[in-house]
Amino acid sequence: MTGPAFDPELIAADLLSGDRRALARGITLVESTRDDHRRLAETLLGAVMARSGDSIRLGISGVPGVGKSTFIEAFGGHLIAQGHRVAVLAVDPSSARSRGSILGDKTRMELLARNPSAFIRPSPAAGTLGGVARRTREAMLLCEAAGFDVVIVETVGVGQSETAVADMVDMFLLLLLPAGGDELQGIKKGIVELADLIVVNKADGELDKAANRAVSDYRNALALIRAGSAHWKPPVLRCSALEGTGIEDIWQTIGKYRNAMAAAGQFQRRRAEQARAWMWNEVQESLMLALRHHPAVRDALPELESRVLAGDLPPALAARDLVARFLGKDSDRDGLTG
Amino acid sequence: MTGPAFDPELIAADLLSGDRRALARGITLVESTRDDHRRLAETLLGAVMARSGDSIRLGISGVPGVGKSTFIEAFGGHLIAQGHRVAVLAVDPSSARSRGSILGDKTRMELLARNPSAFIRPSPAAGTLGGVARRTREAMLLCEAAGFDVVIVETVGVGQSETAVADMVDMFLLLLLPAGGDELQGIKKGIVELADLIVVNKADGELDKAANRAVSDYRNALALIRAGSAHWKPPVLRCSALEGTGIEDIWQTIGKYRNAMAAAGQFQRRRAEQARAWMWNEVQESLMLALRHHPAVRDALPELESRVLAGDLPPALAARDLVARFLGKDSDRDGLTG
Repeated sequence: MTGPAFDPELIAADLLSGDRRALARGITLVESTRDDHRRLAETLLGAVMARSGDSIRLGISGVPGVGKSTFIEAFGGHLIAQGHRVAVLAVDPSSARSRGSILGDKTRMELLARNPSAFIRPSPAAGTLGGVARRTREAMLLCEAAGFDVVIVETVGVGQSETAVADMVDMFLLLLLPAGGDELQGIKKGIVELADLIVVNKADGELDKAANRAVSDYRNALALIRAGSAHWKPPVLRCSALEGTGIEDIWQTIGKYRNAMAAAGQFQRRRAEQARAWMWNEVQESLMLALRHHPAVRDALPELESRVLAGDLPPALAARDLVARFLGKDSDRDGLTG
Repeated sequence: MTGPAFDPELIAADLLSGDRRALARGITLVESTRDDHRRLAETLLGAVMARSGDSIRLGISGVPGVGKSTFIEAFGGHLIAQGHRVAVLAVDPSSARSRGSILGDKTRMELLARNPSAFIRPSPAAGTLGGVARRTREAMLLCEAAGFDVVIVETVGVGQSETAVADMVDMFLLLLLPAGGDELQGIKKGIVELADLIVVNKADGELDKAANRAVSDYRNALALIRAGSAHWKPPVLRCSALEGTGIEDIWQTIGKYRNAMAAAGQFQRRRAEQARAWMWNEVQESLMLALRHHPAVRDALPELESRVLAGDLPPALAARDLVARFLGKDSDRDGLTG
């Protein structure tokens, strides 16, 4: 039933030795939605878990056009030259619809992709944000177990994906364009406030002065809209990924962040809380999935939902009926539907 | 078992005739966490549901000291003078801890509280935000059925309560102080972006000029951090609740918002989506509650959770074990615990 293709013990052994092909296979396994694959994926995760965690997990976001790929290529190359191993994952729930998956284009990050100290993986091609986020979390653990000590999770500035990424990383970087005023409106609400570090990219050539103004504008906006924490106030830096300037400064700042958070006990605490929240999310998602697939629920749902939408039925009554159907408690049903 | 105290049919009849004492009893019933009361509450809601919905639902938030009570007293009094009936509910999940419940102090909003066209209800004294929000949603329906055509849900600027309130109302108002720059940092992240209308209060006396500067600062900040929707761009107004200036302008703006949203089909759509989301939240909460109370889950949880927190056990494996225990599927358990 499981087929010979995935042997979790074998994948685990190769992956732990740093083999990138085994890592790729392992991620394919955790991305699979097949029930038997899921069990194998959990076996794999269980086998490598003890070797995961030894990395800095960085989320990177920014609107299309901000130069994310160029930045990650320059940043990753810089770190590899210092002896690091860099994995790049992507979270892009829209890729299934648009077929324009970030990182899906093989020509992106060409240099980084060819470097044996790098590992690049496109976003899973299908699934809800919750599903994509889950698989990315698990892929992150596999990358760490394979010896990648910098794990970058890239996402685009759409909807809720930034929040999902911020909830799985140690530090969230937001790349912005050297624009100001009305042109900044493209930033989706709440995203600036997730950032632990803001980087104004494309600070080169004609945009050099505009970048300085943007840095100053964003510092002012941050002061207006965001209360700093006791441990860290998000800095606004500038860089040119194209010219390679500002990259080392960003890496130094990441180090300072890590030290500040670790000294306050916040680094491990954030990870532990993320793991706990993830466990409860998994519980919740699999319960809700089981409920939605239950035959008695499926029979009643269309009528109940349309009455709730029309304002005829209190949501709490509809909910009680659905849960009673799922758990098989006939006494809790109110005869709302035939 | 149910006791003679709550007869949902009787409460429904009196409530529908506009009786404020019946309304208060009805809300007490929906606030009760007793299982038998919950069933009666659902009967009550079912009986009055058809008469609910005919109101404008307003969320009002702002940090302590911004003058929320004074504003609501002035605003409510103004509307009652125009023939409206005004209900004020509160969402304050911190009230159980602090014992300083908003609206709990009887001396607050003294004039409004004595007015027969007003109904004021403090926040439920205990419970999680989810629980408080659920009961407030239901209380809102009861207020509408009792003929209150303006329902105000007040909350304080703490944590996630604003999001919960924004998700249950037609329009969200944020009250701000006439302060600028660093003094604005007290605003919690994301809250400005929930607002459909921002009101700078205390625009009087010595603060008159500061209020004008604050209005201008907030307009600039909104332009920087928030993309307007096609139907509405949140205005920034000023008022003095103390002197009663600016109140009619706010009410006119609320009317414009309502008309703009209704013309775009967004008013009813927002309510329908809120009702649907509420139904699924109810389903989720009652499932998660049932899982947490299940004996087999309680036995295993401490060990599983501590291993997840320590990074020894993949969250997905722990989750699968918990769900299998809850649904009684022994074959899905992995023997993680004894």
